Amino acid sequence: MKIIRYPHKKDWPLLCERPVIDTRVLEQHVGKILYDVKEQGDRAVHNYTALFDKVNTQVLEVTQQEFEDAERVCPSALKMAMQLAKRNIELFHASQKEQEIDVEVMPGVNCWRKSVAIEKLGLYVPGGSAPLFSTVLMLGIPAQLAGCKDIFLCSPPNKNGQVDSSILVAARLVGIQTVFKVGGAQAIAAMAYGTETIPRVYKIFGPGNQYVMAAKQLVNKTGTATDLPAGPSELAVLADQSCVPSFVAADLLSQAEHGEDSQVILVSDNEVVISEVLQELQQQVAVLPRKSIALKVLENSNAILVKDLSEGMDLLNAYAPEHLILACANEVELAQKVVNAGSVFLGNYSCESAGDYVSGTNHTLPTNGHAKAQSGVSLDSFVKKITFQKITRVGLAAMAPAIETMAEAEGLIGHGKAVSIRLKN
Amino acid sequence: MKIIRYPHKKDWPLLCERPVIDTRVLEQHVGKILYDVKEQGDRAVHNYTALFDKVNTQVLEVTQQEFEDAERVCPSALKMAMQLAKRNIELFHASQKEQEIDVEVMPGVNCWRKSVAIEKLGLYVPGGSAPLFSTVLMLGIPAQLAGCKDIFLCSPPNKNGQVDSSILVAARLVGIQTVFKVGGAQAIAAMAYGTETIPRVYKIFGPGNQYVMAAKQLVNKTGTATDLPAGPSELAVLADQSCVPSFVAADLLSQAEHGEDSQVILVSDNEVVISEVLQELQQQVAVLPRKSIALKVLENSNAILVKDLSEGMDLLNAYAPEHLILACANEVELAQKVVNAGSVFLGNYSCESAGDYVSGTNHTLPTNGHAKAQSGVSLDSFVKKITFQKITRVGLAAMAPAIETMAEAEGLIGHGKAVSIRLKN
Repeated sequence: MKIIRYPHKKDWPLLCERPVIDTRVLEQHVGKILYDVKEQGDRAVHNYTALFDKVNTQVLEVTQQEFEDAERVCPSALKMAMQLAKRNIELFHASQKEQEIDVEVMPGVNCWRKSVAIEKLGLYVPGGSAPLFSTVLMLGIPAQLAGCKDIFLCSPPNKNGQVDSSILVAARLVGIQTVFKVGGAQAIAAMAYGTETIPRVYKIFGPGNQYVMAAKQLVNKTGTATDLPAGPSELAVLADQSCVPSFVAADLLSQAEHGEDSQVILVSDNEVVISEVLQELQQQVAVLPRKSIALKVLENSNAILVKDLSEGMDLLNAYAPEHLILACANEVELAQKVVNAGSVFLGNYSCESAGDYVSGTNHTLPTNGHAKAQSGVSLDSFVKKITFQKITRVGLAAMAPAIETMAEAEGLIGHGKAVSIRLKN
Repeated sequence: MKIIRYPHKKDWPLLCERPVIDTRVLEQHVGKILYDVKEQGDRAVHNYTALFDKVNTQVLEVTQQEFEDAERVCPSALKMAMQLAKRNIELFHASQKEQEIDVEVMPGVNCWRKSVAIEKLGLYVPGGSAPLFSTVLMLGIPAQLAGCKDIFLCSPPNKNGQVDSSILVAARLVGIQTVFKVGGAQAIAAMAYGTETIPRVYKIFGPGNQYVMAAKQLVNKTGTATDLPAGPSELAVLADQSCVPSFVAADLLSQAEHGEDSQVILVSDNEVVISEVLQELQQQVAVLPRKSIALKVLENSNAILVKDLSEGMDLLNAYAPEHLILACANEVELAQKVVNAGSVFLGNYSCESAGDYVSGTNHTLPTNGHAKAQSGVSLDSFVKKITFQKITRVGLAAMAPAIETMAEAEGLIGHGKAVSIRLKN
């Protein structure tokens, strides 16, 4: 990590920069895949699967037998772990359910809002080097809680033509019955447009590589909703002298091991803390299986010394990290000052990996500075909040002069007439 | 309106189609405007304002004097109308405030979620033929309620180089201090990238023509959030024999007068109702100032006869209208069956124009079928919901086996180590 001492505020934007991804070239490639799947359906899906995943999938849908095989090979410790995660994720997301409040705005004017589940969902779960079954839990559980009717899951087949067993076990655990062996942009296209086998959905969730991301952005333009614009994962730690440097180092490494484009940033008001964390990093990274990835990430990362924690918090709000750990003595007070972040971890025992898997919060979070305007995935992401109103004649009469005056001022006489005709007789 | 009797379910998709807008050519034009504003700042904004709005704006920001002049020329009836609208919009949107719930997921594992206002917002309000001051209220009021700090508004100058007085009065009424005389794609670009005069914002709200929409879509890709993908406005009415045909006709016309691309659709289980509404339409449209627009819309619209209201509701859920009026005897029961709609109006006295202006619900709603996956603008649109967690040593110990097992199964050993290092000593 590069140590930056007391950066001037005018240099903050540079410290807050993220890697720029030029999607234009990508979009052409991905656009072709989308077009082919839209036009040719399953045939294109099979062709691209053969091309990119190097397998011939005769049947796209995972069979009952495959689900059963997956249950058999999945270690029971992993099943138990998933069950605890499910319990906690369910508990926390259930607390996000919104009560319907009927507001009598005026006598005879009642307005309310109701959360209605999105009917058809597509979840995308990458396979490849790491089978992200935890993402199945993070998306599938709130989808079920929300009451979504049709939930489909796409995940790329491995070289044996199988979807990873842990992904299948997680799918069953959260009640997903239909899984397709399709990955990449072709999976996104299939769920956005529908094929003979794969149903068209209204909203697509899930992470993926740059092709998947570009595909999600493109189908978004043609009317399929998507979750978050995802970028490389990020962790920022604000640490004061009360922190345990070995814990902070372990947290930074748990982020750094994700991928070479991962972003980690350490901010402290204490130079000794920084040097101790850096020392710990050196020791801990040496024994990490994904050492080479982590080292590359650390090389591009900053440890920033600030004059006090308040300035540190300002800098981090400007950065808007996906994950933020507050390893500080006055963590609760500092948490009040968080304006831009995806998810915040307070104190020395709240490590990011707890939230990644088991504690109950969602791990699908805004990256790339999007935390300035966007929330992570929550129960909200799986519903539409529809407004309703019931107005009586008395209620309408009370509002009539205002409606008619405003309609006239906007030049929309018909809007006023819809009121006056009701009150005429 | 074209009458369609008992359409077969396989023909519903055709009846639910919206006009397709090819944005590709548009995107090239708009891309150039965005690029110029990004590179040249205010200079490009001035140039495009001269080109498109045919005025030379020396000063982009609306002055104190202009605000005062606007207050003077604005009729007091309009001010009073706006005040009633503000009261109701405030009341309803305040009910959307979310309480922080601290969930003790397990002993020593506490998770909660907090709504934090988006700091910097840009509102776009079209001018042109109709000064949409009601949109200022619909966006500005929840923005203030949410606690957004910096709210900027852009609206195109008229041929005298002025922003419409009613827009300025509405802005002041909702506490917006800074208004810029800029319209079109150049306004969106200025708020997305920032210029010497116009600050960069994190999220842009507001309707506009196809250039504005394309610009919002493009800046979205480079990290500025936007509200809804907007299409032509829509109204669907489900009417049974209890409806008042003249009211239904007035409602359809209030939508039809918006613009030639507006969408109206009437669904009924009763052929007499349909023919009476059509008769009423003929009479009422004759005296409407925007008659030619409304006639054109009606020409492209359908009145659909269905076998019963339940089938009608299914058809309307497939259509997913922006606005839905239930002019039926069992309106409350039918409202329970609404799955896809932006905003729903129950009974004979709940006209759309009430919700457009005064009743308190938001009028920025999903069009073009987006109601299948998206909500209208609400208090939610102006906040990020940030998750927090505080875990004690005991809490972490209880989750440790699960976290470590899952991390290992995903091949992320560092994630597990962040836990084990904390529990070692």
